[in-house]
Amino acid sequence: MLRPMLATPLRALAVALGLQAAPAMAVEEPPLEITAMGSFHVGGRLAEISGQPPRDIVFTPGGPPARVDVNGRYQVEQMYVQWFRPKAERGRVPLLLWHGGGLSGVTYETTPDGREGWLNWFLRRGWTVLNSDAVERGRSGWAPPEVWGAPALHLPVGNPFERFRIGQGQGSYDSDPAKRQVLPGNQFPVEAYDQFPLQLSPRWTTTDAPTIAAYTALVDKVCPCVILVHSQAGQFGFRVAQARPDKVMALIAVEPSSVGDPGRADALRTVPTLMLYGDFIDDDPRWPTIRRTGLDFAGRMRAAGGHVDVVDLPAQGIRGNSHMIMMDRNSGEVAQLIQTWLQQKGLWRP
Amino acid sequence: MLRPMLATPLRALAVALGLQAAPAMAVEEPPLEITAMGSFHVGGRLAEISGQPPRDIVFTPGGPPARVDVNGRYQVEQMYVQWFRPKAERGRVPLLLWHGGGLSGVTYETTPDGREGWLNWFLRRGWTVLNSDAVERGRSGWAPPEVWGAPALHLPVGNPFERFRIGQGQGSYDSDPAKRQVLPGNQFPVEAYDQFPLQLSPRWTTTDAPTIAAYTALVDKVCPCVILVHSQAGQFGFRVAQARPDKVMALIAVEPSSVGDPGRADALRTVPTLMLYGDFIDDDPRWPTIRRTGLDFAGRMRAAGGHVDVVDLPAQGIRGNSHMIMMDRNSGEVAQLIQTWLQQKGLWRP
Repeated sequence: MLRPMLATPLRALAVALGLQAAPAMAVEEPPLEITAMGSFHVGGRLAEISGQPPRDIVFTPGGPPARVDVNGRYQVEQMYVQWFRPKAERGRVPLLLWHGGGLSGVTYETTPDGREGWLNWFLRRGWTVLNSDAVERGRSGWAPPEVWGAPALHLPVGNPFERFRIGQGQGSYDSDPAKRQVLPGNQFPVEAYDQFPLQLSPRWTTTDAPTIAAYTALVDKVCPCVILVHSQAGQFGFRVAQARPDKVMALIAVEPSSVGDPGRADALRTVPTLMLYGDFIDDDPRWPTIRRTGLDFAGRMRAAGGHVDVVDLPAQGIRGNSHMIMMDRNSGEVAQLIQTWLQQKGLWRP
Repeated sequence: MLRPMLATPLRALAVALGLQAAPAMAVEEPPLEITAMGSFHVGGRLAEISGQPPRDIVFTPGGPPARVDVNGRYQVEQMYVQWFRPKAERGRVPLLLWHGGGLSGVTYETTPDGREGWLNWFLRRGWTVLNSDAVERGRSGWAPPEVWGAPALHLPVGNPFERFRIGQGQGSYDSDPAKRQVLPGNQFPVEAYDQFPLQLSPRWTTTDAPTIAAYTALVDKVCPCVILVHSQAGQFGFRVAQARPDKVMALIAVEPSSVGDPGRADALRTVPTLMLYGDFIDDDPRWPTIRRTGLDFAGRMRAAGGHVDVVDLPAQGIRGNSHMIMMDRNSGEVAQLIQTWLQQKGLWRP
């Protein structure tokens, strides 16, 4: 009875979600077939807050404040992980995706212009993928102000445009899209830039230790594995791999903004590592230093007998990548480069 | 070459994730087969912060504070939505899951004792499901303190135990699980209670209007649909349905803690509605009033010519349900009750 009226809604939904593009893409892409999925939280601790005065909180706008006792025991510093298992598993171990600063696992789910993210890309190649929100971000929750002793940092909408090598640095963002100064040849889908700040997550600057603890707990729970990290997660990936080298079959660092303990580079001797850097770095005020730190660390790993491949994408003819490589127009091309490297390491069943 | 060494990790992962239980369950359950998924943010606005003094933020623990200018334009009040499409679609419209207060979409993903949540349950029955994090929660992000004019509220670990009809009210929680006073016959997996606070999300009490705006934007984007709401989302579901009655083919309210605009109950005349209430309500200090508000609203809808089914689960012989019905041991039984109702409404292809 409802059929005539409801024949179109699922088509309408497909249009709304941008799935109209799917048939064309499906020609090239392996199918997405997920037969198991779920989520869990890992790590964390209980924090006791005591001796705080009651807080006045307004529960209904315009209403009188109610006195709330904030003292008590709180669950803090846990980490949220969502996992997907494809029907035909070809990765020999699970693939863990760790996002960067001011962001969450959404980084890998979708691109600002609505294409599929690396989560789907690797699932389509048969990897079991675990995508997490770092401590304090997204579905991991965040602690009462007494626990981390610092306020959260919120990024203004133009900040990533100027800082992630999308625009031409400081002052290149404008609220009028037509006036934004984009780096010429940039692969970031700049026409959809305004969708990107929707993904931003407030962050703290004082939570490295609990974040590393939670990632270590994750590795202890689900690895051996391959870990792919981006930006801020560079230090998390390298440090956790230094603590659990036997659990990490390979580490892929996409523009790591920091690295591991330089004094313990030898701990990574048995961890094959791939480091990737995009374009526009030479003329950026910050990135030459950040990349040099990464290359120095790679040198230490090699000196200790480790195996590190550093890929400078423009030197390989892959030009125009911003810091958000997994969102750039050529994100699939770079994913394929990573996939080929993983195959060469014997971590995927051809 | 890696095969012998790595033959076990995926089995180990399955154990770690509790998938060992899957074969037994798979006998009864329809298969999970997802062939499309993604996420997006919807709604929100730009908020300008100006005239604020610089803030001192410590970026490295122990390091000197850096002066940060917090003035600028911020993206706020957007909402995160993750969607999944099953291979064999049988729901005539998508099913939207809206979680309750202090929680996020994780509510529907998993139970504290590691069983599958209602997200998977309805996907296995062929529904396209959209699971969201309300404004301010989870992957939706949250606004700088200047925007909402109130601090976030964090729930201590024992709060849901005492307030969600798991324990015997105020004072029934103890940090020692053996000393917790559980309501006799409770269906909540109390042995795994300590996993539940891991899912808690800080919340505000001043964000109803932007939350309703974002849910309305979601309905405008992806509906017609069925909406299933829980607890705090009761008011969001009823109010959005009042604003878009032509887009909501059915509304399922699981223990709504509040309802729609009583003066506009007639707007829901064409929206078939199912309201569900669990056990232990009569002896609770808060829930008799909350339920009465719901029943009054149902009465107004009926008086206006609407169709509302109110199910008192214990009166139907389904006993022991806490407020977190989707996590209770009999969550599948209640999901089946909802599914049967949806089939009766012609919203599912048998």
